[in-house]
Amino acid sequence: MSSEGVILVGQKQTPNYVLATVTQFSQGVTRVIIKARGRAISKAVDTAEMVKRFLQNKVEVKDVKIGSEEVGEPGKKRRVSTIEIVLERKE
Amino acid sequence: MSSEGVILVGQKQTPNYVLATVTQFSQGVTRVIIKARGRAISKAVDTAEMVKRFLQNKVEVKDVKIGSEEVGEPGKKRRVSTIEIVLERKE
Repeated sequence: MSSEGVILVGQKQTPNYVLATVTQFSQGVTRVIIKARGRAISKAVDTAEMVKRFLQNKVEVKDVKIGSEEVGEPGKKRRVSTIEIVLERKE
Repeated sequence: MSSEGVILVGQKQTPNYVLATVTQFSQGVTRVIIKARGRAISKAVDTAEMVKRFLQNKVEVKDVKIGSEEVGEPGKKRRVSTIEIVLERKE
């Protein structure tokens, strides 16, 4: 059976997100999606790379999607870029 | 015939890289790879998204690769994350 987890990368420091992701995998989750917007995008990539090194040969980057969405209140709307990094446990 | 361009995203502001990318496509290049490291990764995603909106329906994101590399002098080495975003002109 496969299960999926999501990690939203935001203001905290990178190790927090690395630990959260590794914890999900260690609890048996087979796929974790790391999501971020705006400036946190770099941190999401750092997180994925650190998880890959930490769980060497056990986890791989399956897909990376970029996009953008509108945020803010009406009249103050602006677009921010987004990223989704799909990490999967190797068989 | 297909040709390929590379844009290295660094310290400058995003519009510089958007313009550089759009210029390459307008000169007939069929594939542009936007590359960045570290904090500039978010800017690379912004660049790709802005090019996509600017050249609406003419360009698509073909691939996004993330990785990491070692930088710095011996004894001061550290790893930085990297991204490569492949934009291609649609047929």
